[in-house]
This record gives sequence, structure tokens and C-alpha cells, in this order.
Amino acid sequence: MDNMAYPYVIDTLFTLFAMTLIVFMVPGFAMLEAGLVRTKNVTSVLTINVMIYAIASIVFLLVGYSLAFGSWENSSMSIYAAFLFQMAFVGKTVNIMSGGVSERVRILPLALFTLVMAGLIYPIVVNISWGADFLDGTFLDLNMYDLAGSTVIHSTGGWALLTAILIIGPRKGRYQGNAIRVIPASNIPLVVLGGLLLWIGWFGFNGGSVGSIASKESADTVALTIMNTNTSGLAGAIIAGIIMYMRYRKFDITMILNGALGGLVAITAGPDLYGIYTPILIGTIGGALVVFAVPIFDKFRMDDPVGALSVHLVNGIWGTLAVGIFAADADAGITLMGQIKGIVIVAIFAFGVSYAVIYAINKFMPFRAEDDDQVQGLDVGECGLEAYPEFKRAF
Amino acid sequence: MDNMAYPYVIDTLFTLFAMTLIVFMVPGFAMLEAGLVRTKNVTSVLTINVMIYAIASIVFLLVGYSLAFGSWENSSMSIYAAFLFQMAFVGKTVNIMSGGVSERVRILPLALFTLVMAGLIYPIVVNISWGADFLDGTFLDLNMYDLAGSTVIHSTGGWALLTAILIIGPRKGRYQGNAIRVIPASNIPLVVLGGLLLWIGWFGFNGGSVGSIASKESADTVALTIMNTNTSGLAGAIIAGIIMYMRYRKFDITMILNGALGGLVAITAGPDLYGIYTPILIGTIGGALVVFAVPIFDKFRMDDPVGALSVHLVNGIWGTLAVGIFAADADAGITLMGQIKGIVIVAIFAFGVSYAVIYAINKFMPFRAEDDDQVQGLDVGECGLEAYPEFKRAF
Amino acid sequence: MDNMAYPYVIDTLFTLFAMTLIVFMVPGFAMLEAGLVRTKNVTSVLTINVMIYAIASIVFLLVGYSLAFGSWENSSMSIYAAFLFQMAFVGKTVNIMSGGVSERVRILPLALFTLVMAGLIYPIVVNISWGADFLDGTFLDLNMYDLAGSTVIHSTGGWALLTAILIIGPRKGRYQGNAIRVIPASNIPLVVLGGLLLWIGWFGFNGGSVGSIASKESADTVALTIMNTNTSGLAGAIIAGIIMYMRYRKFDITMILNGALGGLVAITAGPDLYGIYTPILIGTIGGALVVFAVPIFDKFRMDDPVGALSVHLVNGIWGTLAVGIFAADADAGITLMGQIKGIVIVAIFAFGVSYAVIYAINKFMPFRAEDDDQVQGLDVGECGLEAYPEFKRAF
Repeated sequence: MDNMAYPYVIDTLFTLFAMTLIVFMVPGFAMLEAGLVRTKNVTSVLTINVMIYAIASIVFLLVGYSLAFGSWENSSMSIYAAFLFQMAFVGKTVNIMSGGVSERVRILPLALFTLVMAGLIYPIVVNISWGADFLDGTFLDLNMYDLAGSTVIHSTGGWALLTAILIIGPRKGRYQGNAIRVIPASNIPLVVLGGLLLWIGWFGFNGGSVGSIASKESADTVALTIMNTNTSGLAGAIIAGIIMYMRYRKFDITMILNGALGGLVAITAGPDLYGIYTPILIGTIGGALVVFAVPIFDKFRMDDPVGALSVHLVNGIWGTLAVGIFAADADAGITLMGQIKGIVIVAIFAFGVSYAVIYAINKFMPFRAEDDDQVQGLDVGECGLEAYPEFKRAF
Repeated sequence: MDNMAYPYVIDTLFTLFAMTLIVFMVPGFAMLEAGLVRTKNVTSVLTINVMIYAIASIVFLLVGYSLAFGSWENSSMSIYAAFLFQMAFVGKTVNIMSGGVSERVRILPLALFTLVMAGLIYPIVVNISWGADFLDGTFLDLNMYDLAGSTVIHSTGGWALLTAILIIGPRKGRYQGNAIRVIPASNIPLVVLGGLLLWIGWFGFNGGSVGSIASKESADTVALTIMNTNTSGLAGAIIAGIIMYMRYRKFDITMILNGALGGLVAITAGPDLYGIYTPILIGTIGGALVVFAVPIFDKFRMDDPVGALSVHLVNGIWGTLAVGIFAADADAGITLMGQIKGIVIVAIFAFGVSYAVIYAINKFMPFRAEDDDQVQGLDVGECGLEAYPEFKRAF
Repeated sequence: MDNMAYPYVIDTLFTLFAMTLIVFMVPGFAMLEAGLVRTKNVTSVLTINVMIYAIASIVFLLVGYSLAFGSWENSSMSIYAAFLFQMAFVGKTVNIMSGGVSERVRILPLALFTLVMAGLIYPIVVNISWGADFLDGTFLDLNMYDLAGSTVIHSTGGWALLTAILIIGPRKGRYQGNAIRVIPASNIPLVVLGGLLLWIGWFGFNGGSVGSIASKESADTVALTIMNTNTSGLAGAIIAGIIMYMRYRKFDITMILNGALGGLVAITAGPDLYGIYTPILIGTIGGALVVFAVPIFDKFRMDDPVGALSVHLVNGIWGTLAVGIFAADADAGITLMGQIKGIVIVAIFAFGVSYAVIYAINKFMPFRAEDDDQVQGLDVGECGLEAYPEFKRAF
């Protein structure tokens, strides 16, 4: 038996485990969004979620991975495990974007955008932050610390969503004069199932991003990372529950889960850098930001049925800043200014390119479903299948 | 490479894997209970399940873990992994209790009780059985063998549930004169999904409780533990199916799953101690106990919509006794008397303290929802969200 | 610390991880099938799925494992882990068969058939392909390469299904004169959840079938196997989506998922043998075969509500042939003729014995539910429980 093989073997096994947890986020996003939209659009969001996983992953195999990392080499674990782990991330950026334009977005232009996001936009963001780094040595070189993607994944997806909302507009009937029509979630068990699957997937997302578990130090770092990730989610859930209860005397489970997800996004930039109590603060702020951001986006008529802007964009920024505030370390090159610079550069790039791409696709293949199709629901027209054909509708 | 690091690394990875499986029990309990209650109370039970995970886990981080184990030290694996594994257990005791008082319990007093259970009651039970052991050397010192918590988790939760049922009373309309109103489960796919997620989570619960996988002997013990756990669940499912079919000529899937869960609870005290065939007997008795106990509790008007008393309390006791019957070993200090002593001491403590705490909370913040609220369903009043607002009700 | 223990320890942990993923296929099949059938038959298919796991697993423990492998010995990992991994496979063959005769099959004769499949038919197929090999040295000796069971699992289940469909016949009202009545799936979120859980389970199914991860070479093989498995599923989903869109201008998510499953079945014979791009071709052909085979089976009035013949039988054959086409290696004894011989011998055995057993059981305990029971739905008569009693039916 070759002693030298063990770190390689253990890190391969560990990374396959982490990757598998991330893939549970595919049903996680699918169930969360299927539960949050109206029954008439459920098949559409489910189809979009499966389509994103399929297209984003295969495009990343064909072009994205090489663009991000330069070469297919890895000496510390199996390259196939390393690829699978990175591949599991890709679709998430599009999931974030597609969720926020649910109930009026058409599938075909979204499939085209998925191609570009997974083949070009996301790989370039990875290239300059985690990958081959073609900006290395230039004044644009990123010094941002972002372990598992508060900025690289969540803000990138969030900026793409922001451009999509600006171009596609709100759901028909959502804003009527000064009134905002409340559109209730259609299936709360699916919302809870999806939210919890995402939570579990985050253990793999952040834990696996440590990159190795094969020494005592890295084993501690991985376990601390998962513990801090979980703690921040807990704190986000609790604060969202408390705020909602104080305001409305109701325990609003959709907001509690979005608070948890906000806490999870916020910790993602530096779960390995904090002690075990700091994540309580980071998650509490993250959960509170979600509760306060949701009505603000609505005020600006940015219609986001699943709260993705508040969860992913706002907390992606907050989480990246938090590293600069709570874990600045000049020796390690972690500074608040470096974090801000990273946020800004990724923002300009992701917003700019996403805007251009969505605008261009939209010219010849409109993202927005016709008003009549929205009234009928997208399932019949786009997918030919109702989600629950046998259940009589109450309205 | 440091050879000495490997047991530490492997046990950290193993414990993180086991912990993750246990966290799948959060959606497991949530889906099972959401499927078993009526649609008008589904959002309420889902909210309770998420709330329990959030509160119990953070309270265990802040006070419970120290109370149970005395110190944050561990030399055989990352302390953060060890913490996460123990943390994943905590909420289960409250899940057991909350499930059994579904459809009439209010969320806020339950949240308060969760604080006390996770911060005080459960940590003390762990302290005297698996932890720092403040009773060591006294005549109350426990000699009970309980690998993964037939008594420590399941009976403790079961006793808390018993006190809660006594204090809160049955659902309005459940017992009418001598008649027992049958209240059907509202969503069988969720029941099955939840039951199977719990089953899978049990592999982590019991397997991880072995504490190490890093030698040949411990690897065998872990694998045997998981195998025996599964076998007992299989036997519980089969016997419940057979008994129900013989009685009613129907295959009752809710009883089959509760039979499986009964078998899983029963094996939990000693899955590492038995050969590969004994679990068939233990699970068969466990499953049969569930089928026979359910109507008995109903006869005493102890209204338990999910069968938690039969699954967790009855089988928690049976499983702990089974160790004394099938695996008594004087050299290892395992005796039937020691098991009985453990059952009784935990029973007195858990029942007594739970009764006092629930009684006290109930005085200023009633657990029981008003009759009108029960008729309307708890979702609207407590949560402000119906679970399935678009589906027209058949009744 | 004993250095020699590590391969044993790591492979035990790896196999337990893989086994756990496969057990996620139990809720996977259950949710997929519960979503595809009509609400009146949902409890029945759920009950069947749980029953199959329970009966098949315990029968494999009592007789099947010994029949397949000859002895309970294993020196490379814990025998209990090795057993659990093999046990997790068994029920799948019956799942494949039961899904395809949904909505008219009765539970009790199916339970009997499960006994025979798990105790006799499947163990013999394993014996001659992966196990003790009682045909060794005879002219019937199999030289088929089938890593994780394109033939051993999927075709075997598929042949059993074919015999069952021939004997049991189509659902009442499915074929009327020359018309084929379209019967829509009742719950698309469950279909998607189930399909994705199966997909994730496949990582354990194929990855674990490599048998070891404890050297650099085997770690690479495991990771490559999982990567190729996933890629083939992606390609199957994409091609099915493209074909359906080109034909009907609809994105049909049930066909997309069946295309993915077709790709996953097709790669299963040799995911370790291909480079990283070949699975795109194998999965594309696999997904296309599903789309084209579904209407052909309907033309021959072989009523298969979940598309199991197209997914498992057709692609089980295709995947086994693909090894002979793309990975023939005379030195390793892999030839197209050997693959064909394996397909044919298993086909004759599985079809012949399944036919005899189903025919015999059917004589004294009919598999087919009475027409009236089919009209009413099987849930009430067989299980005594409606799946969604509170939801008013639209038809």
C-alpha cells in the first residue's frame, strides 16, 4: 500500500461527497420554486430547473471548465472529482436568476442564456477569482477572499437577475396603480422541502470549497466551515421569524426560510475564517436584510416571486463585506478594500455582460411570455402539462 | 504526510457524513407530519419543524453542549464535527413531542419549551448517559447501554410528549362520547417521503454513534450497526403490514411506515451488539408494538395524530430492554437491571421536568389553540399562510 | 495505528456512502411513480414501493446473498458494508417491473413475486455475472462486462416487466379501438423530485460498483465513473427535450426526465471504460431511444404508465452493447460478441423464469385488479387510504 496515495484518495472521496450534497440543491431549488409559484406555472419552473442543470453542466464540460481553470490538471485529487465539484456550482448562478423571473419567463430564451452563463460569464468570473486568473498582475487583479462564492456565485447570479427583471418586467397584474397584489405560494410543503435541501446542500458547497480534508488542520477547517455555515443559517431563520412575528403576529415560514437562505449566502464568503460565534452575527444581519429588502424591491416594482434578489444579491454583497469587517488580515492579504474592489469588479462585469446578452437574446426571442399566456399559466403553453391536472382549483 | 493524522481525518469525514444524514431527518420529520395532518394545519407543523431545528440547534451551541459534555475538547476528531453530530440530535427530542400534539398546539409556547429542552432537559439526560456524567459514583449512576438513544432520545422525547398530551388534551372533536373520529392523513406521498428520509437519516444516527470508523474493528462495527438498523426497520414494516392485512384486508402504508419507525427506534439502543439475525426479532416485536399500542393510547383518549407515543416511547423502552435481554454481558457491565434502572431514572427525570416546564409555560402562555382556531385550522391564525391555497377542498 | 487497515477502512466508508445514495432511490422511485399515476392509485404505488424495499431486502439477507455470492466473506472491506451495497440493488429489479404495471396491479401477488425475484431470479443472474458463477467453465459462461447492471439490473427488471405486461394486460380504458387514451401524470413536482433522487442515487450505484477507492487508480476510476454517469444523464435529458420540442413545440418534463434516466441506464454497463466525451454519445442515443420507444410499445398495446420498458429494458440492452462497441478490448476479454451473449442468456433466463413465476402466481392469485376496482382506483380497495382525501377532484 502506497502511503502517499491517502491524501489523494481521501480528498477525492471527500470531494465526491461534497459534490453529491450540492447536486441535492437541484431538487432543492426545483421544489422551493415549485412551491412558491402558482399552480399554473409549476411545471414551467420545474422544467427550467432540470433544463438548467442539464445545459449548464454539459456546457461547463465542453468549454466552461477550461475557460475558468485553464487546464485539466490536478495533483491533489482526481481531476474528475475536481471537475464534478466545480460543475455542480455552475447551474446555481442561473437558478438564482431564473427563480426571480418565474411566472413570466419563457424557457427557450432562458436556455440560450444558460449556454452563455455557463460557457462564458460564470467561467470568466471564476477565472479571475478562483481560477487561472488572466487579470493577474494588472490593476484589476482581484484580492477578494470568497471561499465558496458569496460574490462569485450569489452576486453573479443576483446581478444577472437584476438585469433580467429590468428587461423582462413584472408579472402581469402584480402592480396595479399603487397597489401590490399579494400572490400566495401554492404549495408550502414543497417550499420547506426545497429550502431544507438547499440548506443541506450548502454543507457540501462550503465544506467542499476548503479543497482538502486530508490533514488535521484541514479537517478542522472543513468541520468549522460546515458548523459556521449551519450557524449562520440558523441565525438568519430565527431573526426573520422574530421580525415577522413582531410586525404581524404571524410565523411566516416562507420568510423564515428566506432568512435562513440569506444567512447561508452571507456566511459563504468566509465560513472558514470566523470563530464559532461570529456567524450568529453575520447570519442575523443576513436574515434581517432579507426581511427589509423584500418590500424595498417591491417598492421599486422589481417583481421577484421567490425573493432571490434579497437572498442572493443583497447577502452576496453583505457576506463579502463581512469578511473584510470581521476577518481582515493584512498578512493574508484580506482587507475591506480588497473585498469592496472584488464586489465592484464582479458587479460591473456580471451586470454589464448579462445585460448585453439578455438584451440581445430578447430582441429576437422575447423572454417575456404574452399577457394572455401569463393569465392562462405558462404550463400549458410552454410545457403541455399541468402540474396538478386532477386537483380542482379554488380560484 | 503525517500518518497519525489519518484516524483523525477519517473520523472527521465519517462524522460529517453521519451528521449530514441526520440533518436529512429535518425534512424527514417535516414531510411525515405535514402529510399526516389535515391540510388546514400543514403550514403550522412545517413551521414548527423548521423552528425546532433553528432554536434547538442554536441553544445547544450556546449552552446545551457545554452542559452535556463539560468541555469543548476532542482529540479523536475535529471538535466541530463532534459538535455538529451531537447538535443534529437535539431537535429530534422536540420533534417527537411536537408531532404528537399536532393540530392543536400553538407555536410560541412550543418555541419556549424548545429552549428549555435543548438548553436544559436533554443536555442533562445526555450528561448522565453519554456525557460528563455528574451522577458518576452516586447510587443514581447510570449503567445503561444505549448506543444511539432509544432512551436518551426517543424515550425522553416520548415522556415529554406524554406530559404534553396530558396537559394540552386531544384535538377538538376527536373523541365524541365513546366514538373516536377517524381523521385521515391529507397527503400520503409526503408521509412516505418523510418516513423514508427518516429511515435513511437513521443510518447516520446509529452508524455515527459508534464514534469511529478508523480501524478494521470499528469499520466492521459501523457497518454492522447500519445493517442491523436497516434490518430492524425492514422487520417492523413487514410485521405491521402483515397484522394490518390480516385484520382489515388492507395494506395500510401509514401503519407500515410507523412499524418501520418502531423497529428503527427499538434497534437504536444496541445495533452494534447483535448478530445479523437478532434485529429481525427486535424489529418484529417493535413493529407489532406500534400496531397494538396505537389503539390503546386512543382508548385512554391520548390523542396522538402521528403515533409518536407508540413509535418513540413504547419502542424506546422496548429497545433499551432488548439490550438487557439479547446482549447482556456482565464483563461489559450490560445487565437487564442496569437497562431498567436507566429507563426508570430517565423516565422520572424527563417526565417530571417536562411536566413542570410545560405546566408552567402553559399557565401564562397556553399551548392549546382555541376551539375556533382548531376548527378553522392553525395555518391562517398562527402562520398567515395556507399550505395549499389553490386546491379546492373536498370537505 | 495499523497502516494496513486504511484501504479496508476507506473502502468500508466509501461503500456505506454509495449504499446510502442508492437507498435514496427508494423515495426516488416512489415519488416518480406516485407523480406519474392518477391520484386514485397513488397510495397503491407508494405502498408497493415501500413493500418492495422491505421484502426484497430481507429475503436477500435470508437467502439471496448466499445464493449470489456463495459465501459471506470479504477481505477488502467490511462484509456488512458489502452486503448492504448489494442489498440496496435488489429491490430495483422489482421497482422496474412494478412501475410498468401501475394502476392495475394488485399488491399481494406482487409481494409474492418480490419474494421470488429477490430470493431466486435476481440472485441467479448475479451469480453468473458478478458472483460465485456456477456456470464457470461451461459453454454458457458469461463474458459480459456490466459494471453496475445495465443488463444485470435494468434488463432483468425489464424482462420481468415485459412478461408482467403480457400476462396482466393494459389498464382498463387505455386502448379504445385504435385510439390511445392519454392519461396525464397527476403530480409533476413529485415526478421531478423522484427523477432527481434517482439521478443522485445513480452516483452511488455506479460509483460504488467500482468496488474500491483506496488507491490513486481506483480513486480516479470512481470519480470518472460518476462523472461519466452524470454526463450520460445530461445528454439523455437534452436530446429528449430537443426531440420533443421539435415535434410538439413543448418542453415535456416527463419525457426529459425519462430521457435522462435512459442515458443513466445506458452508461451503467461501462461508465469506468469510456473517456469523458463518449458518454455524451451514449446518453444521446439512450435518450433518443426512450423518445422513440415509448410510442412503439403503445402501438403494440403494451401499456406502461411510467415508460419503464423504454428506460430500463431498451437502454439496458443498448448500454450493454455500447461497451462492446466503444470499449471492446480483447486483452481484457471485452468483445461485442461477449456482450451480446450476455444479453441473450440473461434475457432468456429472466424472461423465461419470470414468465413461469408470474403465470403460476396469477393462476391462484390474479395480478390484475377487477375493472370496477380500476375505475374506482386501487387506493381505497387495496390500501384503505386515499392519497389526497381533502383535495376536490377536477374530474
